[in-house]
Amino acid sequence: MNFTGVFPILATPFKPDESFDDVAMRRMLEFMASLNVDGVTVLGVLGEANRMTDRDRERIIRCTVETLAGRTPVIVGISHPGTSATIELAAMASELGADAVMLTPSAEPVPNDARVAEYFGRVCSASRLPVVLQDHPASSSVHMQAPLIARIVEENPGIACVKAEAVPSPTKITTLRGLFKRPVPMLTGLGGLYGQFDLEAGSSGYNTGFAFPEVLQAQVAAQQAGDVARARRIWAHFLPLMVFEQQPGVAVRKELLCRRGLLSSATVRHPGAGLLPAAADGLSAVIDWVMPGVDITRPIDVSAIIE
Amino acid sequence: MNFTGVFPILATPFKPDESFDDVAMRRMLEFMASLNVDGVTVLGVLGEANRMTDRDRERIIRCTVETLAGRTPVIVGISHPGTSATIELAAMASELGADAVMLTPSAEPVPNDARVAEYFGRVCSASRLPVVLQDHPASSSVHMQAPLIARIVEENPGIACVKAEAVPSPTKITTLRGLFKRPVPMLTGLGGLYGQFDLEAGSSGYNTGFAFPEVLQAQVAAQQAGDVARARRIWAHFLPLMVFEQQPGVAVRKELLCRRGLLSSATVRHPGAGLLPAAADGLSAVIDWVMPGVDITRPIDVSAIIE
Amino acid sequence: MNFTGVFPILATPFKPDESFDDVAMRRMLEFMASLNVDGVTVLGVLGEANRMTDRDRERIIRCTVETLAGRTPVIVGISHPGTSATIELAAMASELGADAVMLTPSAEPVPNDARVAEYFGRVCSASRLPVVLQDHPASSSVHMQAPLIARIVEENPGIACVKAEAVPSPTKITTLRGLFKRPVPMLTGLGGLYGQFDLEAGSSGYNTGFAFPEVLQAQVAAQQAGDVARARRIWAHFLPLMVFEQQPGVAVRKELLCRRGLLSSATVRHPGAGLLPAAADGLSAVIDWVMPGVDITRPIDVSAIIE
Amino acid sequence: MNFTGVFPILATPFKPDESFDDVAMRRMLEFMASLNVDGVTVLGVLGEANRMTDRDRERIIRCTVETLAGRTPVIVGISHPGTSATIELAAMASELGADAVMLTPSAEPVPNDARVAEYFGRVCSASRLPVVLQDHPASSSVHMQAPLIARIVEENPGIACVKAEAVPSPTKITTLRGLFKRPVPMLTGLGGLYGQFDLEAGSSGYNTGFAFPEVLQAQVAAQQAGDVARARRIWAHFLPLMVFEQQPGVAVRKELLCRRGLLSSATVRHPGAGLLPAAADGLSAVIDWVMPGVDITRPIDVSAIIE
Repeated sequence: MNFTGVFPILATPFKPDESFDDVAMRRMLEFMASLNVDGVTVLGVLGEANRMTDRDRERIIRCTVETLAGRTPVIVGISHPGTSATIELAAMASELGADAVMLTPSAEPVPNDARVAEYFGRVCSASRLPVVLQDHPASSSVHMQAPLIARIVEENPGIACVKAEAVPSPTKITTLRGLFKRPVPMLTGLGGLYGQFDLEAGSSGYNTGFAFPEVLQAQVAAQQAGDVARARRIWAHFLPLMVFEQQPGVAVRKELLCRRGLLSSATVRHPGAGLLPAAADGLSAVIDWVMPGVDITRPIDVSAIIE
Repeated sequence: MNFTGVFPILATPFKPDESFDDVAMRRMLEFMASLNVDGVTVLGVLGEANRMTDRDRERIIRCTVETLAGRTPVIVGISHPGTSATIELAAMASELGADAVMLTPSAEPVPNDARVAEYFGRVCSASRLPVVLQDHPASSSVHMQAPLIARIVEENPGIACVKAEAVPSPTKITTLRGLFKRPVPMLTGLGGLYGQFDLEAGSSGYNTGFAFPEVLQAQVAAQQAGDVARARRIWAHFLPLMVFEQQPGVAVRKELLCRRGLLSSATVRHPGAGLLPAAADGLSAVIDWVMPGVDITRPIDVSAIIE
Repeated sequence: MNFTGVFPILATPFKPDESFDDVAMRRMLEFMASLNVDGVTVLGVLGEANRMTDRDRERIIRCTVETLAGRTPVIVGISHPGTSATIELAAMASELGADAVMLTPSAEPVPNDARVAEYFGRVCSASRLPVVLQDHPASSSVHMQAPLIARIVEENPGIACVKAEAVPSPTKITTLRGLFKRPVPMLTGLGGLYGQFDLEAGSSGYNTGFAFPEVLQAQVAAQQAGDVARARRIWAHFLPLMVFEQQPGVAVRKELLCRRGLLSSATVRHPGAGLLPAAADGLSAVIDWVMPGVDITRPIDVSAIIE
Repeated sequence: MNFTGVFPILATPFKPDESFDDVAMRRMLEFMASLNVDGVTVLGVLGEANRMTDRDRERIIRCTVETLAGRTPVIVGISHPGTSATIELAAMASELGADAVMLTPSAEPVPNDARVAEYFGRVCSASRLPVVLQDHPASSSVHMQAPLIARIVEENPGIACVKAEAVPSPTKITTLRGLFKRPVPMLTGLGGLYGQFDLEAGSSGYNTGFAFPEVLQAQVAAQQAGDVARARRIWAHFLPLMVFEQQPGVAVRKELLCRRGLLSSATVRHPGAGLLPAAADGLSAVIDWVMPGVDITRPIDVSAIIE
């Protein structure tokens, strides 16, 4: 896995009673496999990982690995406030057949860069899986300044990728590139909000949950082929939808995945915010605006839409 | 003033030594007046109000009021951690000829809704100027839940407008509209990031610092004329630039205002982040992408650009 | 259980490799049982609950319930960012034989009092165990204002106790007492820092982890017997040690429990801060100062020490 | 000034209408001068500096300097979110005759150690007054890790003192002492909550607002004379009152200063929390407990009280 391309962060499907919906999960996974995405991530922040029991986690990883059966690499979010628990989650991911893990530190009462570095060091030492270092202060409340990230990356060859989600992300990517002593792919998150800017700053693709990965694929392909104008055109065309979808909470995204026929319910685990009727209406409006008349239950034809 | 239309939040021009640049201020104000904006706001969050001395504040308000000389209403940001100081700032604004004030509460060690309500109550009682209630938890760390805002608005007829900047803003606007017992205009901030969605949810326009107010004017005019499709087209066309500009910090916006010929320096007051070379390059790229060949030192012709 | 008296919050013993030390756990539990404390709480904040896997949690609850075998009631901390996961942890606690559960809400990106109330409502509906509502914004970042707590208590008869840890705690206790429509015992936490003030404001005892529960017992007994002067004398005598012990982090407390012969290692799970040599020295000094010559490996004779 | 001894942080007296009460201020200053304190600090956090206008600040500094007339050194809090404004406040303090300034950085949206260092560097370069670096993350939300503080101290000879208020303060003092390349006095704040521990860790005295500076003087004198047992006895005797007084907010302290006859009103500037009746009662109780029958309107006789 070279962490280049498009790696959707998957929402976790729940039934209306909030139990894991493995049927929807498999449906979503098959869809992703059919798109030939470069990998998928489960149990990320917007996968509602923080609302899971460990048994939930196991079930989700197992379902994912079994369904994909090697067709698509699987990255598993394992961030946990305890280092030893993170290591256990890494071990579970490994045993269940995952291909990589993603982690970010938790906020401690007294911030301490040395212990943040140790957190990554211990997990990297204990796990044979490649590690995605996630830099997302908005959810973690941990601000890893660029020199700290560079040091962690240097100390841990196991870090195979940085998920760059600290705003402003394009300049942080540029700064990190200047500090890294080995090439480390950096992926874009944040719902794709800064996706084209990140690509132009040197990101190698997406690791985010935007509900239309085929859009991101077309954009990244154009960018990689040197057709920046086309990459921009694709991204700009869908940007209103991305902006709408990346509003706080995962309810809008789940509703969108329902409309795509992938989820059976937009249920968010409490106390996460559910979908407000006004947001459902707004979503209908923006879909109709960006892709009027398009059947979104199938992979969409990006070229046809943007022409 | 009915708080409908486009009310730019002005950046505060500084010379390279960080002193107030009144020449640039006047130039920018003349530009805004020439656009016939519906009002301007000085000393907002991205006007770097928190880095001012009171004398700075006075100078800026005086320069603004004198330059505009009644052509364009002036809203003055007066948020201050102390209620009596806020009242003094309101009095200063009033004496200097401002037309309205904008305020948001400050975070206290022990949050207390009653005292937040008192904050607005005292300022409204003491000031004869209309008040814009700013709801921007990202900068204030005060989360005013919708029922609290509704109560404050009900208790204080002096509140003439809500600046709706709590994400997700479109649904908050909808929720507030349902709770208000009198019509209160709500304006969009956040750099316009959710502008079209807010308009469709019922916002009455913009109170934000996007460096191309003429774009916002064209969009709002289309929306008001019932041409939602055109409003969307305008907004979507410029959305990549808005997204780029609303990244944290005001340096990018100031650089953009320099390129428009309005500021003479993009200087941000320390310890605010200055412009990184990578951000300057990125800005050049996105301008050239969104408006290739356009002379941005003059009011731009939005219709021509989006056709 | 009437939630009156002294309910130690137990530290979780770890071996130097951070694995659960059940031998030390049993030793500590026997000690608590021998003191006739009114109950014990496991998996609280300073029980490092947030660094546990669910299997760790199960092991700790099982060990506790089995060791105490009904001699001493067991309260289990079950706070979890997900409501359904909290309910599962409540069910696990119940199945394993716990007598009560303790919970506090988690911070959401957009604070929402209604959902905080729902959080308690759902857990209370789902669990037959009495619930301790913990009000500890310092760890949860959730500030439940007094009217919200009163409403939650009113809506949920299952709430049997409030752990009052929002500073200033004495006045919050007074305020809550004035709002509650039924008598609800309130217990003191925060390492006992405000213990005597809380008792005088109406708290019914302690639910905290101070390493000398026999001190708290003597103090509460005196207070209950109406001998406030003696209660104060006891508390004041040990206050320097309490102040020292309640410094951020649990390392000092664990070291103290080692010196009492209850733990075999002061190991804190990473990334929690371990014991600094300077803190160990400081601890020696304060013990020697407060209880010179006392054998702290046995229950101490509080009367003898304070005379 | 060698920043050794006791430097009270002064509350700012307000009349019931929240205007500055210069009569009370002078009375309090005379009292401090009569105690021969080693200096006083005005406009600290609990001096409600953040609720002042700049004119308020000027008035308070002027009143302080004029009243003390060189008898007692004056330290002025000048923390401001803007570096240039901080420099202006330093200049004002200097012009008005202050002897030193105290500052702490403000939180920025994207934390940046380099700019925190620049903040101190610029103020030190611009001001001829000695600088007290305040390390108080509880109010500033800026966590300066020990190596950063050491670097700032090394780069700026103008830094003459560190106010050590980052918990756990005793170990932070020890850590900093190990890192400093020149001797820098460190003073204790936090209402004296960790005062004796800080002294034993190497602090050179107090810079806090406890309403009985004569207690702190007696304690520091004993400590400096090598009579640690007496220092401890003094501190421990008054610790219940210190604990009570350092609860969040300044209302209790102001009430205490009223009872000492120094202030005429316990008025706190809104939206700061005023005194609750329950807190007034609690205060009466603790005073009566710690110093029964003592006339607190005069300097108290610490030796007589603790025997």
